[in-house]
Amino acid sequence: MPSFTGRDIVSIRDLPRPDIDHILDTADVMEPLAKAGSEMLHGKIMATLFFEPSTRTRLSFESAMTRLGGTALGFAETKGTSVEKGENLADTVRVVENYADLLVVRHPLEGAARMAAEFSKMPVINAGSGAEEHPTQALLDLYTIRKELGAIDGLNIGLIGDLRFGRTVHSLAYALSQYKVKLFLISPEILKMRKEVFEEVSKHVTAKETASFHEHIRELDVVYMTRVQKERFADLAEYEKVKGSYRLTAEELTKAKKNAIVMHPLPRVDEVAADVDTTAHAKYFQQVQYGVVLRMALLALVLGAV
Amino acid sequence: MPSFTGRDIVSIRDLPRPDIDHILDTADVMEPLAKAGSEMLHGKIMATLFFEPSTRTRLSFESAMTRLGGTALGFAETKGTSVEKGENLADTVRVVENYADLLVVRHPLEGAARMAAEFSKMPVINAGSGAEEHPTQALLDLYTIRKELGAIDGLNIGLIGDLRFGRTVHSLAYALSQYKVKLFLISPEILKMRKEVFEEVSKHVTAKETASFHEHIRELDVVYMTRVQKERFADLAEYEKVKGSYRLTAEELTKAKKNAIVMHPLPRVDEVAADVDTTAHAKYFQQVQYGVVLRMALLALVLGAV
Amino acid sequence: MPSFTGRDIVSIRDLPRPDIDHILDTADVMEPLAKAGSEMLHGKIMATLFFEPSTRTRLSFESAMTRLGGTALGFAETKGTSVEKGENLADTVRVVENYADLLVVRHPLEGAARMAAEFSKMPVINAGSGAEEHPTQALLDLYTIRKELGAIDGLNIGLIGDLRFGRTVHSLAYALSQYKVKLFLISPEILKMRKEVFEEVSKHVTAKETASFHEHIRELDVVYMTRVQKERFADLAEYEKVKGSYRLTAEELTKAKKNAIVMHPLPRVDEVAADVDTTAHAKYFQQVQYGVVLRMALLALVLGAV
Repeated sequence: MPSFTGRDIVSIRDLPRPDIDHILDTADVMEPLAKAGSEMLHGKIMATLFFEPSTRTRLSFESAMTRLGGTALGFAETKGTSVEKGENLADTVRVVENYADLLVVRHPLEGAARMAAEFSKMPVINAGSGAEEHPTQALLDLYTIRKELGAIDGLNIGLIGDLRFGRTVHSLAYALSQYKVKLFLISPEILKMRKEVFEEVSKHVTAKETASFHEHIRELDVVYMTRVQKERFADLAEYEKVKGSYRLTAEELTKAKKNAIVMHPLPRVDEVAADVDTTAHAKYFQQVQYGVVLRMALLALVLGAV
Repeated sequence: MPSFTGRDIVSIRDLPRPDIDHILDTADVMEPLAKAGSEMLHGKIMATLFFEPSTRTRLSFESAMTRLGGTALGFAETKGTSVEKGENLADTVRVVENYADLLVVRHPLEGAARMAAEFSKMPVINAGSGAEEHPTQALLDLYTIRKELGAIDGLNIGLIGDLRFGRTVHSLAYALSQYKVKLFLISPEILKMRKEVFEEVSKHVTAKETASFHEHIRELDVVYMTRVQKERFADLAEYEKVKGSYRLTAEELTKAKKNAIVMHPLPRVDEVAADVDTTAHAKYFQQVQYGVVLRMALLALVLGAV
Repeated sequence: MPSFTGRDIVSIRDLPRPDIDHILDTADVMEPLAKAGSEMLHGKIMATLFFEPSTRTRLSFESAMTRLGGTALGFAETKGTSVEKGENLADTVRVVENYADLLVVRHPLEGAARMAAEFSKMPVINAGSGAEEHPTQALLDLYTIRKELGAIDGLNIGLIGDLRFGRTVHSLAYALSQYKVKLFLISPEILKMRKEVFEEVSKHVTAKETASFHEHIRELDVVYMTRVQKERFADLAEYEKVKGSYRLTAEELTKAKKNAIVMHPLPRVDEVAADVDTTAHAKYFQQVQYGVVLRMALLALVLGAV
């Protein structure tokens, strides 16, 4: 495996399974440091370039950097930046890399993080770009599964809800396709996983597409719920029609396996009922904590501290 | 007195006088550290969740945290956050608590800080919620009085201006009612203190309601001015009618006691004339400095560092 | 030379040449620390008061402060601040100075930084105010020239583009007038340098005004390009007319001296073509890095650390 020092983390598809497993192993090393703190990245600066706002992803990275003794700076939206004055991404990157040791980029456009990585002399981590890529979310999802269920291989994993517009599930599906899992892709017809993603994933693992959540819940080890995002719909009437489908309640969960875990990239609106929170299945807030640990691992790896 | 470690600071009404006095005593310990700095909270993270913007309260907390060697992260407004995407407060709290060791919450709604404290495993400090509660402001007001006049007991304290809508004066009136003071509640009829606050406060101390500022200024040890906030008025004509009343000038202050102090939660508009600034009575900028010291005390107490 | 400790840096015109040279010499000392880091300002707090947004100037200061072990806090725009509630600059300064050891102020109005410095007990650095003053940009421009060409004296320096509205070129022209340089002020008639600036600068150095970029490029050691900013024009038709003039391309640069350097305060739009980036002349991204180093020097000087 090539050293991680100085590498860009742009797409989950750039990471073969040994790389992913090494990142997850490093996260295990980081976990006690999330509480105890560390000076591993003391003096290092992380710049967050969020061309699209995402408070929780930004705070997760900032927390990870701080826990390792480093410092964060950057911008949380493009208002007031040179981007508003017409500056292109390449110039922004070549300016901001002078302020930091590493760039974390979030951008509404496909390919933006890749382009940033190409122009930057500093390592770039993609914190979400376009509708396809959110590699750190996929990695923290894998880490959550491994921590909570001991291993990823051998599991039945259901991805439920919006499999078409959610960048989270695309990156996760690609990542999972490197493990020995069975995927259940559960969504209304209109929100089915895009053909190219489905075909690629299907080459490596069994992936079953279905519209029926209720029928399959008892088979799942992982119930990965996603939000049907209003902002993805051109037609609000269409949104109203599907938003209630694929809602998970505590009652529904009584059918699930005893050790099944419920995950969600958050924020949720009402696709996971509040009564699920107090069940032992609910792991979505735990997932947030694993996210900090996983990002600590990435920061330490890319900056050559581990 | 119960230990402060891990406690929430939600309402001034949760704090009996011995607790308040202990906080003020701790602030005395903190004061030299505000200049010299400290590593007392090194490695600790404070998250600021400001659902309503308040730059100076946020910066005061950030400065306090930094002076003690800790780090701050968070959001300054809800734009761009998951709240905009329809997330509820309970979820936001249960996410953000994974990024930090302590939450500082400001919210436009009554009861929001209490709810945040109930859902959070981490200690929560209320940095202002709804029209009623602003406990850290009340504590820094008490600290200012004690520092400048040596004690709180025995004083005549005038609260002047908007006693109805200002969250600051509600928290302060409750706090003062635990001391042996005489309160002068000076306001136009339409901005009188709410009945339930007045009745509660009156149980413990003498509280005189009056519309006449000029008549009483010579009796006061503390002249606590407040801003008549345009944004609280439904009817702007009403605002125009009262905004000029209860204005303090240097000339007016010549009638005051020699040692009387003028306080103001800031920002002011024109209720305290600029010519007051250079009088020995003016303590409102000093109050800002005491605010940092007081918040250092709260952070250190709640995080178990003192 | 008076000590820099506690001094305000408001205008380049306050700095006689020995002061400027001392700042540049201090930047030379800082340069290795920009990579290696330092704890020189550990425990110190810099407050950024940006009444006008400027992400890159803010991040440059934050990076400089962080590289020296200090901490930054502040606001990046006035939305949500007390300024919106009608507070005046003097009050804002007298509040925020309690949160920090030094203030960095950016403001749309002429004279605002001067006023802030007058009211503040803490040192103030002007990060751009009005159309005239941007002293830290001028200093980093001088530092870039000295680093790249060995000295400033003896050079032919061209300032090209918008010499009327750009605050950068005003501060730079004043600064350069203290060195033995020949200035070429190259702009369309409508964007000529203001008369009072030209007259002042002409007292000290030869300054030639011309509309012809092509004719003079072969004489220049420094080609300082500026953006013709749309937001400065009342009449957009006028903007469209001039924006294409004074564009620099790699082909045009073949006429330039072998060692000529191209500078730009950035962001650029299209006045410097992308094909210039890969020529050895291009120094505008290097300039950004020198900006961090120069600001490290200013922070260390003003806070008495060197």
